[in-house]
Amino acid sequence: MENVIVRYVASKPELKNPILIEGLPGIGNVGKLAVEHLIETMHAKKFAEIYSKDFPPQVFINTDGTIKLVNNEFYYWKAKKKNQRDLILLTGDYQGLSSQGQYELVENILNVVDELGSKEMFTLGGYGLGHEIKHPKVLFATTDKHLVKKIQKYGAIFKKNEPGGGIIGASGLLLGLGKLRGFSGVCFMGETPGYLVDPKSAKAVLKILTKITNIDVDLSQLEKKAKEIESIAQQLQEIESISREKSDELRYIG
Amino acid sequence: MENVIVRYVASKPELKNPILIEGLPGIGNVGKLAVEHLIETMHAKKFAEIYSKDFPPQVFINTDGTIKLVNNEFYYWKAKKKNQRDLILLTGDYQGLSSQGQYELVENILNVVDELGSKEMFTLGGYGLGHEIKHPKVLFATTDKHLVKKIQKYGAIFKKNEPGGGIIGASGLLLGLGKLRGFSGVCFMGETPGYLVDPKSAKAVLKILTKITNIDVDLSQLEKKAKEIESIAQQLQEIESISREKSDELRYIG
Amino acid sequence: MENVIVRYVASKPELKNPILIEGLPGIGNVGKLAVEHLIETMHAKKFAEIYSKDFPPQVFINTDGTIKLVNNEFYYWKAKKKNQRDLILLTGDYQGLSSQGQYELVENILNVVDELGSKEMFTLGGYGLGHEIKHPKVLFATTDKHLVKKIQKYGAIFKKNEPGGGIIGASGLLLGLGKLRGFSGVCFMGETPGYLVDPKSAKAVLKILTKITNIDVDLSQLEKKAKEIESIAQQLQEIESISREKSDELRYIG
Amino acid sequence: MENVIVRYVASKPELKNPILIEGLPGIGNVGKLAVEHLIETMHAKKFAEIYSKDFPPQVFINTDGTIKLVNNEFYYWKAKKKNQRDLILLTGDYQGLSSQGQYELVENILNVVDELGSKEMFTLGGYGLGHEIKHPKVLFATTDKHLVKKIQKYGAIFKKNEPGGGIIGASGLLLGLGKLRGFSGVCFMGETPGYLVDPKSAKAVLKILTKITNIDVDLSQLEKKAKEIESIAQQLQEIESISREKSDELRYIG
Repeated sequence: MENVIVRYVASKPELKNPILIEGLPGIGNVGKLAVEHLIETMHAKKFAEIYSKDFPPQVFINTDGTIKLVNNEFYYWKAKKKNQRDLILLTGDYQGLSSQGQYELVENILNVVDELGSKEMFTLGGYGLGHEIKHPKVLFATTDKHLVKKIQKYGAIFKKNEPGGGIIGASGLLLGLGKLRGFSGVCFMGETPGYLVDPKSAKAVLKILTKITNIDVDLSQLEKKAKEIESIAQQLQEIESISREKSDELRYIG
Repeated sequence: MENVIVRYVASKPELKNPILIEGLPGIGNVGKLAVEHLIETMHAKKFAEIYSKDFPPQVFINTDGTIKLVNNEFYYWKAKKKNQRDLILLTGDYQGLSSQGQYELVENILNVVDELGSKEMFTLGGYGLGHEIKHPKVLFATTDKHLVKKIQKYGAIFKKNEPGGGIIGASGLLLGLGKLRGFSGVCFMGETPGYLVDPKSAKAVLKILTKITNIDVDLSQLEKKAKEIESIAQQLQEIESISREKSDELRYIG
Repeated sequence: MENVIVRYVASKPELKNPILIEGLPGIGNVGKLAVEHLIETMHAKKFAEIYSKDFPPQVFINTDGTIKLVNNEFYYWKAKKKNQRDLILLTGDYQGLSSQGQYELVENILNVVDELGSKEMFTLGGYGLGHEIKHPKVLFATTDKHLVKKIQKYGAIFKKNEPGGGIIGASGLLLGLGKLRGFSGVCFMGETPGYLVDPKSAKAVLKILTKITNIDVDLSQLEKKAKEIESIAQQLQEIESISREKSDELRYIG
Repeated sequence: MENVIVRYVASKPELKNPILIEGLPGIGNVGKLAVEHLIETMHAKKFAEIYSKDFPPQVFINTDGTIKLVNNEFYYWKAKKKNQRDLILLTGDYQGLSSQGQYELVENILNVVDELGSKEMFTLGGYGLGHEIKHPKVLFATTDKHLVKKIQKYGAIFKKNEPGGGIIGASGLLLGLGKLRGFSGVCFMGETPGYLVDPKSAKAVLKILTKITNIDVDLSQLEKKAKEIESIAQQLQEIESISREKSDELRYIG
């Protein structure tokens, strides 16, 4: 077994000028939530799986009692209208555990996309703020200067020196390694506290992405999930403030 | 030296439709205890050893003063009755230390089993509860949906979303990587506190496994060991509760 | 992709008897600051980039919104006067993350330098003292005994058993692996507290290096940066001493 | 560069039925101290160096200002008397940092010894007790049962189940991997507190080893070093007991 294996589970799809949309686990799981939402609501079809020795040695248990080796999965969706484009969608259970594992995973993803005739991508992720945010903005970075103005028109924001540490993980590396191979692309980062999975941030990212790609996607499910998470977050805060009060009381006593 | 080496210490056994039973070290050492018990009581014969650069650089010292490089070991047992099947038994000192080491080890195990004409397996492990349990149940997961009902009849349990984190390590990976290569199998997980080695859980797993495989195995040795461990556990709890009392006293004084 | 890739972004420069000057990130970032200063003030030209799977999976975001995959970069500068030599300058974002990554990176650097017809180098780094220092001295070590006296004349210092732990990282490894391949060279280590980036130490290193190489470089920018850092350091100390006082007060009360 | 490189610095020595004596860094540095003592007092000659990507990326600085890449080194010594044997001596700066690095290092050591016509070895190390010991005993383990009685006659001790964790590192792995390749050998482990380098334990090991190999070696230098270390250990204990008293006083006050 190679370090990374790409396994086609359906015949290689014939796509016309497709574009990759990537969303793997990361801060707030923003990218993964967004791409999973696209796959479900657009009924995209799975055509390939990626396995890597740098994923954990782990199987998940499906609801029917069968197991599933952790992986990344490729889906495709064919354009329905003239102003749309065929899509390759990528999501998965993990990113590579090590630096080397990340580079090898991303190389293999680029290989698949390349073979399907595409040199373009949107990569989706979160930008961790470490504090609550009412209306998450969407930051972006790109492989090509001429894309900056175009993307700004759709409402994504470019702040100088943000994120200060650049982009770490597959969303950045796809652009970085891709650029060396002639790919062009944009990484969208939804602002997120980063504590919990963040469907609100995923929705903000998809709002912009669907405008750019002329896709009609119902985002109400993400809104519903966002409200659930908000309620959980509130409960956590209450528990925390109670335990803080208690420990303050104890300090008085002590 | 390759990363993993399989070394036959006897001629390759001629087996008829054999099935693998794996039990490597893990939570409560449930799988290892179970397979070691089978090997001893059934007088299974060793035929191969696996060495890996992802095992620790360590030798054990035998009781006669000689050393033994840490490894995994394959044994076989030939069916005595019509309703039995030939068995390949696998146990060992360690699992691979790294993620990559785990994948490579499991690939090599599958290769050996494949060469011996088998595509079936039972993998044995523990399911750590983090608390004491009187009557450990045995959970399972499987490669194939049609096996679920069959296995439930033997008393193994399938709880939705348990274990929540799936199965980590060789027991899961054998099913996961095996499934990609056309293997079918079942992983049995004995409930265990997970603090100490757990012969009681190993016995629970073997009770079901021996029913499925029509093997007659005396489990009284495991029962005896279980009582020894229980007495050790009790002593540890007493020591702990004493030291807790003492530290409570100290707090009063302080 | 190989573990390390050297990518020429300009045609291989024709250099006459060049010498490598290396300064990668490290303690006080002394080496990196020094080489970056040379590149800027001497208008050296980039001709190659090194990418490694042992760099973090990270892109930086340029001020124009485009991304840049983390790397090391080679520059060259051609001698203007008779007593000068052509220079190969190396700096970058990271050293290799792992031991293996370091060895592979350094091997590839030596390959490039070798191909450009050079077997000589100056490597620059910091020597962490763990305390403030008014006038940082510059220690050195070398591949060849006959260089010791020569270098001492330029004001660099050789103290027996310092640094006690030798030199860790690319600056040392370039000399070490280089020596096995017939390279000769000197590592200059500027004394530095090691808490913050240290332009004062970088300046001390460059003062000696420019004398040896007969280069005229304006060091005033480094002086300016050094004053900025000094003022930051002072502010940090004030904050610290205040918080220390406060915690002392609290201790009295408690 | 391969992961491990063996570099001959002299022509391959012609040895008659030689035997390897290994002593690399480890607990109490017992093995390294012992083999270094042999090399110095017997004027053994260096003939090869081993470099590994799993050693730290580090150079040491010699007392003359030159650098030395960290490595392992092979020496040889030719028998002077009839009842002696030619010796291959191995010591070095480090063992491999990772499990994989250890296996690869040991394989390469075995290759060299094999090429020099030897399949026998003594490996030297420490056995950490975690407490002071007046008269360190020397434990042993071996590849072959028939060696046990022979070695016991020389005063080395075999205690059942000690060391309980077996032997970790090169001293054990040389026996373990060697045994698979037809080597035979004995590992001697000198009892040591394990806090500091322990020349006393090294002396105890050499006392037995020199008897077995009929070598005359003056051990007085090790005795002298042992006294120095003892005096350092005493000073450390005094400092500790003072600081313990002080903190007890503080507790009374507080």
